[in-house]
This record gives sequence, C-alpha cells and structure tokens, in this order.
Amino acid sequence: MNIILLSGGSGKRLWPLSNDVRSKQFIKLFKDNDGNYESMVQRVYRQITEIDPDAKVTIATSKSQASAIHNQLGGKVSICVEPCRRDTFPAILLAASYLHDELGVSEDEGVAVCPVDPYVDNSYYEYVRKMEMVVKQGTANLTLMGIEPTYPSEKYGYIIPTTDHEISPVKEFKEKPDTEAAKDYLRQNALWNAGVFAFQLGYLLDKAHSMVEFTDYRDLYSKYETLTKISFDYAVVEKESSIQVMRYSGSWKDVGTWNMMAEVMADDVKGRAVMDDTCENTQIINELNIPILAMGCRDMVIAASGDGILVSDKERSGYMKPLVEKISTDVMYAEKSWGTYTVIDAEPGSMTVKVSIRAGEHMSYHSHDYREEVWTVVSGNGIATVDGMEQRLRTGDVITIAAGCKHMVEAETDLDIIEVQIGEAISADDKKKFDWKI
Amino acid sequence: MNIILLSGGSGKRLWPLSNDVRSKQFIKLFKDNDGNYESMVQRVYRQITEIDPDAKVTIATSKSQASAIHNQLGGKVSICVEPCRRDTFPAILLAASYLHDELGVSEDEGVAVCPVDPYVDNSYYEYVRKMEMVVKQGTANLTLMGIEPTYPSEKYGYIIPTTDHEISPVKEFKEKPDTEAAKDYLRQNALWNAGVFAFQLGYLLDKAHSMVEFTDYRDLYSKYETLTKISFDYAVVEKESSIQVMRYSGSWKDVGTWNMMAEVMADDVKGRAVMDDTCENTQIINELNIPILAMGCRDMVIAASGDGILVSDKERSGYMKPLVEKISTDVMYAEKSWGTYTVIDAEPGSMTVKVSIRAGEHMSYHSHDYREEVWTVVSGNGIATVDGMEQRLRTGDVITIAAGCKHMVEAETDLDIIEVQIGEAISADDKKKFDWKI
Repeated sequence: MNIILLSGGSGKRLWPLSNDVRSKQFIKLFKDNDGNYESMVQRVYRQITEIDPDAKVTIATSKSQASAIHNQLGGKVSICVEPCRRDTFPAILLAASYLHDELGVSEDEGVAVCPVDPYVDNSYYEYVRKMEMVVKQGTANLTLMGIEPTYPSEKYGYIIPTTDHEISPVKEFKEKPDTEAAKDYLRQNALWNAGVFAFQLGYLLDKAHSMVEFTDYRDLYSKYETLTKISFDYAVVEKESSIQVMRYSGSWKDVGTWNMMAEVMADDVKGRAVMDDTCENTQIINELNIPILAMGCRDMVIAASGDGILVSDKERSGYMKPLVEKISTDVMYAEKSWGTYTVIDAEPGSMTVKVSIRAGEHMSYHSHDYREEVWTVVSGNGIATVDGMEQRLRTGDVITIAAGCKHMVEAETDLDIIEVQIGEAISADDKKKFDWKI
Repeated sequence: MNIILLSGGSGKRLWPLSNDVRSKQFIKLFKDNDGNYESMVQRVYRQITEIDPDAKVTIATSKSQASAIHNQLGGKVSICVEPCRRDTFPAILLAASYLHDELGVSEDEGVAVCPVDPYVDNSYYEYVRKMEMVVKQGTANLTLMGIEPTYPSEKYGYIIPTTDHEISPVKEFKEKPDTEAAKDYLRQNALWNAGVFAFQLGYLLDKAHSMVEFTDYRDLYSKYETLTKISFDYAVVEKESSIQVMRYSGSWKDVGTWNMMAEVMADDVKGRAVMDDTCENTQIINELNIPILAMGCRDMVIAASGDGILVSDKERSGYMKPLVEKISTDVMYAEKSWGTYTVIDAEPGSMTVKVSIRAGEHMSYHSHDYREEVWTVVSGNGIATVDGMEQRLRTGDVITIAAGCKHMVEAETDLDIIEVQIGEAISADDKKKFDWKI
C-alpha cells in the first residue's frame, strides 16, 4: 500500500520533551516487540510494515524534522520535505506528485494520508489498507476514516454520515462542537474526523492541476513558496460531493497532551528516577543525567529535559501551552542527522555544548563569523577538516577554531566532543555552509 | 558576648540542596534587611551582631564546611576547625580552648554554645545574651535554654525543671518520647532541649582538664584524633548537678526538613520557575539554569540542583533520607574557598566541570595522576601556573594539563573556566597538593 504520513507541527504541548525543533513524534516513550524504546514515528513505521512489508511509506514533513526522521528511521522511508510551511493542502499535493514523479506510483493506485501521531494498534493500519482497497473500486472520489466516538468530545471535528453502515456517503462536516451539539451529533451516528483520507492518485493530481499551475514534482517544489496556505479539509474535502466515510471502531488515542501520553507510555518511569510507595498514578520521564525523587505525588506527570522541568497535575497539563510560551527558552537539545547536540552550559559570552556524532557520520562543513570554538574530544576517533587541512582526532585532542575558519568533523567511531563557544553574539543563525571535498 | 556556633552535620534531609559537602546552613533561602538572599549561617551571624556588634563569634565546624563558611562570611568570624569528626564534646572543648588560648577570652567570662540551624528572630539571641549574664552570677555551673513547647512533640528531648519559674534548677532530662509521655512531660512544665548551653569558660576548661590530658589549644588540636567520640549532653550536661534551665517562649523553628523550610523561606519561588494559578501552598527552589513549570501542584515542594530534582508532597518530605541514600549520586556542585565547582557533564572516561573563581582568589597548587585536563577560559583574566611556569590567561585561552603536571590558577577578575577532565579513573581523591611560591 501507499501511505503518506503527515509529520507536522513542532509543538509545545508535550514540553519539555517537545520544542521548536523536536516534535512529539520523536520522543521515545513506547516499546517495540523486543522491548526497546521507540518513538511514535518508529512505532507507526513498524506497525505499517508489520501489516504490509512492501508498503511504500512517504513522510511529508518540514526541513526541521527531516534530520530527526532520518536519525530514527534511517533510509527506510521516503521523506518528502516541504521547502517552507504551507499548510496541509500544498503538503499533500507535493507528496502526491512526489509519489507519482519520483517513486513511479501510477494514477490508478490508491493512496492513504494519515497523521503520524495517533496511538493505535495494528488493526488501524489494517483498516487503512482496507480503505485503499475500497478506493480502487471507484465508488467515491474521496474516502475518509471516521472514528466511532466514545463520548461527546469537544476536541474533534465530526463527520455526519447519511447511514449507519460501515461505508456511508458523507452528509456533512461539523467543526469542534460544544458538548450539547456533540451529543446531538452522536444521535445522528456521527464520527470523529481523524484526518485520514484515501483516494486514487490520479484524482488528486487532476484536482491539483485544476487549482495550481505546475508540470511535475520538481516544478511544484520550485514554486512551493508561492502556494496559498490552505488546509486539505478546506481546499478539497469539504468541497467534494463524491465522498464517503468508513466507520472505524478499533483502538485510537490522541496523545497530544501529557495526560494522554502518560496513559500509554511503556513504563511509569523512564530515566533516572525513584518514586516512593505513596506515589499514585504518576509517571516520570527524565532525560537529564541527574536523578529525580518523587514522594507522595498523585495523578501527576513529571518530565525533565535539557529544556526544562515540568511538574504537573495530569488534568492541568492540557493547559500548558500559554505558560510554556511565557518561559522563553532557547533550545538546549537537538537531534541532528549525524547525532545529537546538547547545550550543557550557557553564559553571556560563552556556551558549552556536548556534540555526539555517530560512527560514519559527519556534520556540514561550515564557519561562524562571530565566535571561536574550542573542541576537546572526550571519547572516540575521527577526522577533522579545518580550513581544508585534515587532522586525526583521538580522545584528549584539542582543536581551536577561530572565527571565520571553515571546519567539520567525520566520526570514525562514535565520537563525543565538548565544544566551548566563545563570542559576544553566539547564535544558531551565525553559520555559513560550504561544499566539502570538491 | 562570646558565642560558639556548632555548624555540623552534612545532611540529606534537604536534598538535593544539601549533600555530603554542602550543609543546609549554607542554602540561601532567607533574606536580609536589604532583601538580599542569605543562608542560615549568614542570617545567624547577622542576628547576633545586630544584638551585640562586639560579639565574638566562633564557628566550630569540620574541614569540609570551612570553605563554605569562609565564602559566606569572609574573615568576620573565627573558625575553629576540627581535624576530624569527634562528636560534640570534643568539638566544644576544642572551641573553648581556642577561645581561651587563641582569642584571649578569660576564664571568668561567659560563653554560650548554640547550634547554627534553628530559624528564630532576634529575641532568641537577646535571650542567649541574658543567659551569659546569668552565668556570670555563678548560681549554677551550667545554664541551658529550654524551649516552651507548642505541642507534645516526639522529635525533641525534654528538660523537666523543678519549678515553673523563668530560671529553674533542672530535675531531669528525658529522651525523645512518644506522644503520651510527651503529654505527661508537658503537665510537668517540661521544656524542649534546644542544645543551647552557657557556662563560664573556666568551668568548662577545668572539666575538660579533669577528663582529657592536654596543655593548650594547639596540644589538644594535635591529639584530637585520639579523643573519644562522645556528645556534650552525655559527657557533661547529664552528669552535672549544678545545672539550671531558662524558659524561652519566643520564636523558634527547626528547619531540618523541607516541610518546615518551605514554611519560612523568603519567597515561594527562588530561581527560574513558573507556577500556574491552580498551584496551592507550593514552593519551588531551582538552582538549575533550565526553567521549571509547575501546574496544579498542592502542598508540594520542588527543589532542583546539580545533584538532582525533588518533587514531594510536603508531609512526605520528612521521610526522604533512606530514598536519597538509595540514589547514590556523586556530588555535582561544591562551594570552595575560592569559588564554585559545578559538574556539567559526566560520562565514563570524561567529566566536564565549570570552575568559577572569584577575583583575587586562587585554587591550591596540585596535580592528578590519572587524568589530563583541558581548560578553556570563557570569561575573565587570571594567571595560571603549570609546572612552575606562569602564563597569563584571557577569555578564549586554552591550556592542556597532562597527568602528573602541577597546576593552579589565580583569578585577577572573576574567572570562569570550562574544565574537561579525561581519564579512565576520574576521582576527587586523585589529587596531590603542593606548596606554591616557595
């Protein structure tokens, strides 16, 4: 089957484990069949390939997430990177033309689009496959998944079907309602809109060509910036008359808040933490290398990372967004395509960073105008290039890199470097990239 | 007046702000008259000198606390350092002979001994002065302070007086009782034993000479290690027949647990932290440079330092000692006579430390057998000495110090250094000290 996974939104609702460069889908709180920790994106990929080992999985995402996806899934998936953010219609359109023009998917094949972040079991992806099969029968242009509601929620949009059959034409869509309206919808057999659609690839490409002038994927990519920001729901779904919904009553959980995430995470404690025996219904995730001691905590979630520490009543955790925005905090941890980058000390005029590079990987060849750097290798071997000169690096070696000097390092083994940055204007924006080995 | 302050016990009951090298009396959670944060030891010193600007204050303490005391009080107090730990009788004896032989206090002067850690107002030290005056009248060899109990506590020892007068002979002492026994003591006008004694200096020296063979302070210091470990209560107080108690009914709080400390700290939040408006009766102390967000917390204390993070129900916080002992943690932060030492990263084979040295101060001249160090100056100026060679240090300078190499640094301005230690056996014990400038 062909699946486009939408991996969007850097979010603050799972702060401090999600931030501007690290989305919730990359936090490793679940476990795979061997008991190893895995992230949402790893879990989803695993689930899809358990259902269909030959599935063509394409992740539609932004530049900022491409490294993390590569890090977590390696070369196993296609990544369709948006050159800039333009809402879901342009993103799905770009991914669809990528499937057609780059992966050779033919116009009569079915394609499903799913968000990457619901917590489900494998039966969900069985159902997505079923949707793709239904799509090929051509009974409707667009097939949606409708989640059988478990309560009259105010958090989701609703789909009102014309019948209560498993597959039914759609009567109308409803925005997030209040509880009374939601109760009324439930009496009409309404379903939650989970943002899952399936269609024949040709349908979407025709639709796209009627709305946007472009020749192929590369052309669309080059003019992506000029596209209007508009959601797929608004641009396509709500305007389509040949549309049906398939009723799904299997497992489905929205883990967008700590309250829900705490419920599904694999272990009550991840990382260095001790709970006394008076703690109840409490989960701790600790990414710091100092211990957490929790005593007498009830219905709480405690989460710590280089970005900060959350101590919250579970119920309240859903309201954190404005508070997190108030805590203006620099990003202290980032997952890169070559490894990780952790700020361990920040002062006016200096910043100390721990850089970990995986064996065989290398960072980009770059320079900084406004800071010098002192690298001390604390473990591993590698080769540094500084202004074109190669230099072997071993544990204990020190390199000083003046402002303006081009530099990079390739790791021969896993390589840890303590990097001290010194300068009055230290900023992630102070970076020029250069070609390497030309 | 002459006061000996006993500054003992490295404790775990205020973890993570107290640890093996940092006692609760050095945590800055109170405020002075100008609104600046102060520690318990600073507060006590300030209170005593507000009552009596000419007070001779001597702090009896261990080697491990001497640096922190010097750091916080500068040269204003005499510090009588025990060469090793030998319980309160030897400690008070050493301090008494120090007063006599080093500070020239005469034998007929009164001396009061107080623990450094109760939270009181100035009236308490007024009362201590009054005790010293009473002592000089010679009506008893030993005068104790008895705290008017506010409830039948199981946490304190009791003094049963013969009368209910302000000054009364002591009938007997009682160990920490159960609640029923405590109620019975209260009916007998009993008082809490606060560990405050006053005596004429000559009395104690006579007593001491009858029990220990020594000539003067220096002689006692040299044989300190041979003294028997015994408490002052057991060795002197409980054996003395000429003994009286003075009834104190002013403010007095034992801030040995977070529950009590949270009640008296100056601000509900110290450090980077945000509480939402559903938090109730909650205090946060954050010494880390990442923010804490607390939501929906009730009756809790949250404390974070380089050693760890505590999230506790206040009532439960009194039971933390065994749990903290379970979290075997290396000391990540230490206050030195010359500044501070903060571990910012620790891995097998390496440790990264931020060393901050105050202007004018210097560390000891020393070497390590099993590690090399790379120092990068991130701010300030100083002079390093490496194997006898002096070298000026400025921001951005890097020094590599091989294993076995003697080194030290003097700060000309406040000086911050990132020190990367590399070696298979990094340990605080791997340190040889040398004389400098001989």
